[in-house]
Amino acid sequence: MNTIDQANATAVERMIEARPVLVGLGKALDVIPGMRENLLLHAGPPITWERASGPLKGAVIGALIFEGRARDAAQAEALITSGAVQLEPCHHHSAVGPMAGVTSPSMAVYIVENKTHGNRAFSNLNEGYGKVLRYGAYSEDVQTKLRWMHDVMAPILGAAIEATGGMDIRALLAEALHMGDEGHNRNKAGSIIFTKNLAPHIAKAAPDGATAAAIIQALGDNALCVLNPVMAACKAMADAAHGVEGSTLVTTMARNGTDFGIRVSGLGERWFTGAAQVPQGLYFPGFQAADANRDIGDSTITETAGIGAFAMAAAPAIVTFVSGTPKDAINATLEMYEITVAEHKAFTIPQLDFRGTPVGIDLRAVVETGITPRVNTGIAHKEAGVGQIGAGLVRPPLAIFEDALVAFAEEYGY
Amino acid sequence: MNTIDQANATAVERMIEARPVLVGLGKALDVIPGMRENLLLHAGPPITWERASGPLKGAVIGALIFEGRARDAAQAEALITSGAVQLEPCHHHSAVGPMAGVTSPSMAVYIVENKTHGNRAFSNLNEGYGKVLRYGAYSEDVQTKLRWMHDVMAPILGAAIEATGGMDIRALLAEALHMGDEGHNRNKAGSIIFTKNLAPHIAKAAPDGATAAAIIQALGDNALCVLNPVMAACKAMADAAHGVEGSTLVTTMARNGTDFGIRVSGLGERWFTGAAQVPQGLYFPGFQAADANRDIGDSTITETAGIGAFAMAAAPAIVTFVSGTPKDAINATLEMYEITVAEHKAFTIPQLDFRGTPVGIDLRAVVETGITPRVNTGIAHKEAGVGQIGAGLVRPPLAIFEDALVAFAEEYGY
Repeated sequence: MNTIDQANATAVERMIEARPVLVGLGKALDVIPGMRENLLLHAGPPITWERASGPLKGAVIGALIFEGRARDAAQAEALITSGAVQLEPCHHHSAVGPMAGVTSPSMAVYIVENKTHGNRAFSNLNEGYGKVLRYGAYSEDVQTKLRWMHDVMAPILGAAIEATGGMDIRALLAEALHMGDEGHNRNKAGSIIFTKNLAPHIAKAAPDGATAAAIIQALGDNALCVLNPVMAACKAMADAAHGVEGSTLVTTMARNGTDFGIRVSGLGERWFTGAAQVPQGLYFPGFQAADANRDIGDSTITETAGIGAFAMAAAPAIVTFVSGTPKDAINATLEMYEITVAEHKAFTIPQLDFRGTPVGIDLRAVVETGITPRVNTGIAHKEAGVGQIGAGLVRPPLAIFEDALVAFAEEYGY
Repeated sequence: MNTIDQANATAVERMIEARPVLVGLGKALDVIPGMRENLLLHAGPPITWERASGPLKGAVIGALIFEGRARDAAQAEALITSGAVQLEPCHHHSAVGPMAGVTSPSMAVYIVENKTHGNRAFSNLNEGYGKVLRYGAYSEDVQTKLRWMHDVMAPILGAAIEATGGMDIRALLAEALHMGDEGHNRNKAGSIIFTKNLAPHIAKAAPDGATAAAIIQALGDNALCVLNPVMAACKAMADAAHGVEGSTLVTTMARNGTDFGIRVSGLGERWFTGAAQVPQGLYFPGFQAADANRDIGDSTITETAGIGAFAMAAAPAIVTFVSGTPKDAINATLEMYEITVAEHKAFTIPQLDFRGTPVGIDLRAVVETGITPRVNTGIAHKEAGVGQIGAGLVRPPLAIFEDALVAFAEEYGY
């Protein structure tokens, strides 16, 4: 084993051994490291307002309205372009958010603690379907729902999470992979496990039965409700593998709707970015590829941690949602073994005789084989405020892996 | 198509088109047709006390203690042997019960209505794990739990079911088969779908949060909580296919712990019985095949309706529980196509490219091929009061299908 292989073995073992436990909810300003009053976090690598896509702009506008900082789009834009409010990636603050990923100071966020290595990670609340902030919608009904989530649901949800004594999200995911989830686009099983774990505690923590019922129903009706804690869990696992000297392991993959960016364990905080692609997939009735935004969101943290498209073999029913056949789902996972350095100990795939999922993307293998990581994803409309229009598959550009490998060679003198 | 094939096509179409909806809970005495104060229902074909196995006797004793008719085993036995209390099969009363299946007059039962054909079916409540009546345990802790279920849980559960407006169990099963359940031994997904559907209504119907929490927790912690409504749903589907003149479709398979019995669509209420086998499977630590009771329970109604072992390909993770490999699970389903007349429209298997489950066992095909239906099952200790000691696979004796085919030939003059 050469030194890079050794470094990768160390990094991937840290990723696999991380045990992310959901411990509570907190206000972003209070709990996210480096969060401040004039900061909004967003998905993907750093980006300016000028280069931001429709859905990201829409979510920024919506978050500033939610915060009471702006009354409309023009006021929100002025706050950003003047520099009064700044934009930084979630990933710079131990956080992740699906799609636009916009997280503002007063939002409630899930707190996930890696019990093995001690690091924490954060993610915002999932709003469910239809017109939602994460897809760039910011109308009054979006605001009404956000306010209910934060004023009514969050305090009780937080109390319920604490009453569980902490929910082991790695264990939840392991179970969900045996129930047809892949943990990214398909979180049906995980979401109802999450709901049933919390429901008794919500019933006890709520001021009355009607409030309890509304919160349980909001979780139970949302087959993605667990996505955000899952993403925070994957972030906690990926961060545990970051910063290993000499490692070519990819520890971040994220998109801001314009650029796809990656970071590498042995290359510090440096991003390698290229144009994000438009996903290939199935569109909701009335929409087509021409309506689609480029790939967006931090949810690629799932693939980074060895689930999502990497675990597709576990989720044959997902093809009704993202296109393809069950055999394609098997092949998707098999292909990912080509570019990863380990098989996961906790995440196993019954359909592959309980083989561990492919985990730990090796930059070198991507460049050598030309096989880029597969990503399952939702598809956002390219205009702010419309929302989700489909779901499908996408890959990052190969060039960013090549760039990273060149940088790695320079950094380490190969 | 000959006349038998035509009759079978009619029968299996009725089975497939039946739409079983859980509409409420009722007291067995009030809602089960032909139920009476001095009657206990039990699983499987008719049996006398003398020939009954340990777990069935234990459950009868427990039910009579629960009813306040007996204080101990001796008093219970005297009631039965004197004829003061009679035993009849659940199946004679549109009902089914897992394992011993004992259902007494004051027990709460699920009411399932077939919205297509109008027939109803019933099943008792699932007690969860450990020492439970259905495995023949009847000690004080079993009684305490039964009393809580009937006094505290049942009224609220019934109100919650009614508040859903009716739960389509065929739709629930279709979804659960895409989430790694086979609907008999593995009901993890179905049980949490059931729990999350009911939880908001339980929160509203309960007198206080603590009571709501206890009921939701009892359902959520029990990965078999949906088995009983599922069995009632399968009974409603199978009964819809019964009584078709000239049909060789098997519409009942059931075991009482001593005998395995079947009934046939075109042969009225007549049972064909033979010795039930001891299941092959995995035993809990400390137990072995010598401890096992013969196969017991009405839960074979799931296989009769095209799920359970017939849908094993959908549930590769089940092999950790019943033995075998994921490939065996695929092969189990493939084999069942050999003895069935249709593929289910509602129940599909992602792993087989969404092929419908094999449904409608044809007596003729069983006898011609020598392939008997596969059954997934729990394994009971042979002595009353011990409980579950494992889970595995079993088949009915071929001879009962041969007997039925001879009877069919006599009846119809072939």
